[in-house]
Amino acid sequence: MNLSSLALPHVAKLHAYTPGLQPSEPGWVKLNTNECPYPPSPLVAEALRREIGEDGASLRLYPNPKSSSLRAAVAQHHGHGLREENIIIGNGSDDILNLLVRAFCAPQAAAGFTFPSYSLYPVLIEIQDGRSNVIEFDRSMRLPFDRIASSPAKAFFLTSPNAPTGVAFANADLERILATFPGLLVVDEAYAPFAWENAVELLARHPRLVVVRTLSKAYALAGIRVGYALAHAEIIGLLDGVRDSYNVNRLSQAAALAALSDPGYYGAIIEKIKATRDFHVGDFIQGRGWFTYESSANFIFTEPKNAAGGSGPTVARAAYDFLCARKVLVRHFPSHALTASFLRISVGTDGEMLVLSDTLDAWLKAPPNA
Amino acid sequence: MNLSSLALPHVAKLHAYTPGLQPSEPGWVKLNTNECPYPPSPLVAEALRREIGEDGASLRLYPNPKSSSLRAAVAQHHGHGLREENIIIGNGSDDILNLLVRAFCAPQAAAGFTFPSYSLYPVLIEIQDGRSNVIEFDRSMRLPFDRIASSPAKAFFLTSPNAPTGVAFANADLERILATFPGLLVVDEAYAPFAWENAVELLARHPRLVVVRTLSKAYALAGIRVGYALAHAEIIGLLDGVRDSYNVNRLSQAAALAALSDPGYYGAIIEKIKATRDFHVGDFIQGRGWFTYESSANFIFTEPKNAAGGSGPTVARAAYDFLCARKVLVRHFPSHALTASFLRISVGTDGEMLVLSDTLDAWLKAPPNA
Repeated sequence: MNLSSLALPHVAKLHAYTPGLQPSEPGWVKLNTNECPYPPSPLVAEALRREIGEDGASLRLYPNPKSSSLRAAVAQHHGHGLREENIIIGNGSDDILNLLVRAFCAPQAAAGFTFPSYSLYPVLIEIQDGRSNVIEFDRSMRLPFDRIASSPAKAFFLTSPNAPTGVAFANADLERILATFPGLLVVDEAYAPFAWENAVELLARHPRLVVVRTLSKAYALAGIRVGYALAHAEIIGLLDGVRDSYNVNRLSQAAALAALSDPGYYGAIIEKIKATRDFHVGDFIQGRGWFTYESSANFIFTEPKNAAGGSGPTVARAAYDFLCARKVLVRHFPSHALTASFLRISVGTDGEMLVLSDTLDAWLKAPPNA
Repeated sequence: MNLSSLALPHVAKLHAYTPGLQPSEPGWVKLNTNECPYPPSPLVAEALRREIGEDGASLRLYPNPKSSSLRAAVAQHHGHGLREENIIIGNGSDDILNLLVRAFCAPQAAAGFTFPSYSLYPVLIEIQDGRSNVIEFDRSMRLPFDRIASSPAKAFFLTSPNAPTGVAFANADLERILATFPGLLVVDEAYAPFAWENAVELLARHPRLVVVRTLSKAYALAGIRVGYALAHAEIIGLLDGVRDSYNVNRLSQAAALAALSDPGYYGAIIEKIKATRDFHVGDFIQGRGWFTYESSANFIFTEPKNAAGGSGPTVARAAYDFLCARKVLVRHFPSHALTASFLRISVGTDGEMLVLSDTLDAWLKAPPNA
């Protein structure tokens, strides 16, 4: 019997999103999924121990269905007049992005996004059997304003700083889009804590703006799955209607609350990551002469040159394979000309980045096909 | 500006699922959401402390995207030849139910369910803009086989033991449905650990059967949001295509693994809950003369009679209000004749049930409108 024939036709044809490798054995220098190289605030472990208590008795009870305390804390954290009604909490920001697709995208209602950007958007749109409007960057990675303005999308997803390039878009550019594009502009700010500017202050005067954040990157909490959106209360109400009523568990709510209460700790590790990043961006550009985008994120998108000075998809793949064989894990996106000749390297500790750098040196000195 | 006009028309009209009250202040006898009155296995708190470690460093890393160890443990726990490929883990069983609706239900593909049953099904179907096929029980709560057999649904959701009645359906009855109904039969076994039989053994010979489980009830882990489905590998593959890639966080995976490793502990608390339940079902029927369904779950669905011997929706509401005013929280479903004259009472500790019983005695002795 063909069980798939019972499923919706588009579901039977789906291709799942490919997350970056999560090796289970130790010993890897893991620079492939933009995790934070430093542990979360010590207040997080403390809050978790408190929630678990002696015997985990609180875990027998359902969590607060709206993550109400966390909504209030997020509003206060961002200021700019934001209130609890402007916040929704997700099981990771992927949950939030999924809610946005479910509320605004369908076969007859397109969702838009740029290429390259976060590769989950088309996956979510395909699950929804939605129409896609893909707008490609050119190698400059500058915003194609006119094409976005004329996009038929009800909701347009823009990652800023962008992934996998690290290129950030200025608030002035976002306002230029909002002035011409008539739909919902979703600015996915997963990496904004590493940038010099963010879109939160625009929310007060732009009701069609949604800002999405995550605790997975700058907050060193990819393991607990907490993200959120900031938006007009009416948008939040729509998303709450589509949301699973207990989407965020008790421990994740407790951990996220603790993290937001320690801006001093996070300010320090973010500065450290930015300094490490800027040093290595400089090293790639000036030291190695590799084309590298200016990064406003916690990763670096660089185009390797081999010993002969050549670059391109096979060179990038060779560098990736060399690194991987030596347990240094980075990311390669081979499926498109704009990304295939690059590697995306998450910013690790100085020690991890030294291993990366030394391994790339070894690659350059290795005989071909080593 | 009307922001809702940007959303899909059916989303703008959604009514969110109403979860049972989760009072945040202490002092309540909470018998309203079928949580376990006993704490989880001590191995759970231990495993969580181990995962958190000294400083929560592991939380900076993404969880295993497939919850692979947990899939393997669930397969082993249930036996009957089940393998990892027959299991999918969800962020609560609500996540699993949502994946099933997204994979099998659409405007042109109905999902079916009985009334009464878990009130989340119609909510999930409405979010999907799907077609519903609702089949009502009569007061006997016996399965309407012929109507289910001729249901146009691609997937039919049957809760067994049923909520809010507690009535379980025998495997022979499920096989009778599978022999005539041509779609996917989803048996939502949230309460099966409290029943005398379950459908897991049927999976080997019925590829169109899906069994859904949760750790929220019998495992005392509503706070961590873990549920799962058991099904043919092809069905699991379809659901994985719709699933969020990191849907279950690290701590919940660790907690669930620990819980499954302690069947002795859970066997004992399940026996205790069943004994408390059976005592109080007897007390409602013989002691008070209230119509009460035989329960195979961890709750009791009973039809209160007031001091004058009357029953009905206003009597049930009066009992509910009297209990609630004295901080005893149960559940009342006023919107339908099959449920409106009943209360659903989660089975608590003996002490909590004594408070309930004493408060109902006080209600019976109170002057009208007290």
